[in-house]
Amino acid sequence: MNAPTGRLSDRLTLPQPYLLFLGDTTEPSYAKTAFGLADWAADRCVGEYGAEGCTVTTGLPRLAPAAARAAGARALVIGVANQGGVIGANWVAALVEAMEAGLDIVSGLHVRLGSIPALAAAARRTGQRLIDVRSPPPDIPVANGRKRSGKRLLTVGTDCALGKKYTALALHRAFAERGVAVDFRATGQTGIMIAGAGIPMDAVVSDFEAGAAELLSPDAAADHWDVIEGQGSIFNPAYAAVSLGLLHGSQPDVFVVCHDPSRTVILGMESFALPSVEEVIDLTIRLGSRTNPAIRCGGVSLNTSSLGAGAAEALIGAESRRLGLPVADPIRGGAAFAALVDACLA
Amino acid sequence: MNAPTGRLSDRLTLPQPYLLFLGDTTEPSYAKTAFGLADWAADRCVGEYGAEGCTVTTGLPRLAPAAARAAGARALVIGVANQGGVIGANWVAALVEAMEAGLDIVSGLHVRLGSIPALAAAARRTGQRLIDVRSPPPDIPVANGRKRSGKRLLTVGTDCALGKKYTALALHRAFAERGVAVDFRATGQTGIMIAGAGIPMDAVVSDFEAGAAELLSPDAAADHWDVIEGQGSIFNPAYAAVSLGLLHGSQPDVFVVCHDPSRTVILGMESFALPSVEEVIDLTIRLGSRTNPAIRCGGVSLNTSSLGAGAAEALIGAESRRLGLPVADPIRGGAAFAALVDACLA
Repeated sequence: MNAPTGRLSDRLTLPQPYLLFLGDTTEPSYAKTAFGLADWAADRCVGEYGAEGCTVTTGLPRLAPAAARAAGARALVIGVANQGGVIGANWVAALVEAMEAGLDIVSGLHVRLGSIPALAAAARRTGQRLIDVRSPPPDIPVANGRKRSGKRLLTVGTDCALGKKYTALALHRAFAERGVAVDFRATGQTGIMIAGAGIPMDAVVSDFEAGAAELLSPDAAADHWDVIEGQGSIFNPAYAAVSLGLLHGSQPDVFVVCHDPSRTVILGMESFALPSVEEVIDLTIRLGSRTNPAIRCGGVSLNTSSLGAGAAEALIGAESRRLGLPVADPIRGGAAFAALVDACLA
Repeated sequence: MNAPTGRLSDRLTLPQPYLLFLGDTTEPSYAKTAFGLADWAADRCVGEYGAEGCTVTTGLPRLAPAAARAAGARALVIGVANQGGVIGANWVAALVEAMEAGLDIVSGLHVRLGSIPALAAAARRTGQRLIDVRSPPPDIPVANGRKRSGKRLLTVGTDCALGKKYTALALHRAFAERGVAVDFRATGQTGIMIAGAGIPMDAVVSDFEAGAAELLSPDAAADHWDVIEGQGSIFNPAYAAVSLGLLHGSQPDVFVVCHDPSRTVILGMESFALPSVEEVIDLTIRLGSRTNPAIRCGGVSLNTSSLGAGAAEALIGAESRRLGLPVADPIRGGAAFAALVDACLA
């Protein structure tokens, strides 16, 4: 985040509650970030706001920035992406209005907010902050490998983009519903906006990757859990560096393997076969035991969105018997997911 | 390098000869940059200079900056690193003295020279340059995993700072002496200063780590070798992300394991045992085969600097018999090293 001050742990924290900005969007799939925030952080969203022409809604109250500020909002979050990940020229007036109403601006887009002259000028004039969540905090230390107190769970994957964030959020919610002291630790831009804090691990300089992961889940009470959003895969030829640094620094006691049974090759790399769940379990234990010798697999999260309910249930049962581990689709929930939660907390 | 332009190989022109700066270092392992330059670029080093408290030496004449300038030096090179790559507060006076004597400052540390107010002020006052070698080229692509033509050798290690650069330089020299078409590919600040080109792999954003390694050793003739300087260790809890991204992107046909038999724990992390050579071989093959299924171990490079000649020879022989692989100390050379070169080229 930009212009950080104070303790490093404070720099990882976003101003909340949010006003969700929907731009001039007419296509719901471009508002994924807003829908994710409305689903997972509804208690920290006071409303939504659209520019001229916007037709999508999260179902939250529609509030102008001044009304949102009066209702307690501290930041406007850009909850929409258009192709190319740029700031629409017709969004700028709304963002300036938000700053003049006393809101910071939070963005996960590729383009830096401060690179847009009208926004930079408004930030100087109003004293509000422009916060790019893709920028890691400065001064991340090198990892020291010291074993930290508290319990940690990391979601890992057979590949990218198949449910690691969703699984971590669902486990976090289930732990909390059981009365467990738990924090969700976000490692990507959407997760950071949902959690209101976190480190974009793929944007960290590689020498500090494990150090960033250590910073993300600090010492905690012995019975406290951090549920850490995984990134990439140790089998992904492009992103394994991110995954291994996150694994080493997270020191997980438990990991959950996330897998999509409809995927057979690495996303965008057709010559690389997807690893099996067993291979991921085996290599994660081997690599993860370097910083936590007690690491164990809590079970498997299957993304069965490509299957009907009956086929999904049959596959979940068959995989659980084959692997001898709890297997569940967190979106489908049910007894299988409860068993996965039990196994993680055991 | 600041404001790089043009081809990778064109991006570095450093002022030479050098005065090597040793800071206040008392631990030789942290002075590997100075030792590397003294050994591989001795004809371009006029001497060395230490701050108060320095106890290590490269063996070059000790010269104050003014005397070094009179002897022809054009730059003081920071030849020492501490954990985290920062500028010691007690180094600043020596660096200012060097600028006032007419020397530019060259640094491969993470911290930018110009971010230190006293150095920035001295640079403005004296007109000398502050040159940060550690800047990766812009616009590094994400790795694509495509197998490239030509042969590649990567040095890997049981830890940091025990001979991976030395071994790569010695193998590069030996390959060239046999008439093999070969390039040394530098991945750290010292190697870049010696080679005049390269990518500082530990300064690359982790999402692009493997992509940077792909860029570093491009397609080449079928019988051409790239000898790639390794970084860190896949067993180092702080730096394994760097090592794995470099391994995946380098796609080595052959790797050589570098090891210091006097070291029992990870440098600066006393609670972490050094892995065995066999563990490094096994895990390097397992991880490296993801992008080059034909990966093999060419042998072992032992850093026997802590041993006398007889003990070193005995250990080299015993380790070679035990492992069933060529083992040599490149600094001692001899028939053992020739056998290691044979095995790598086989």
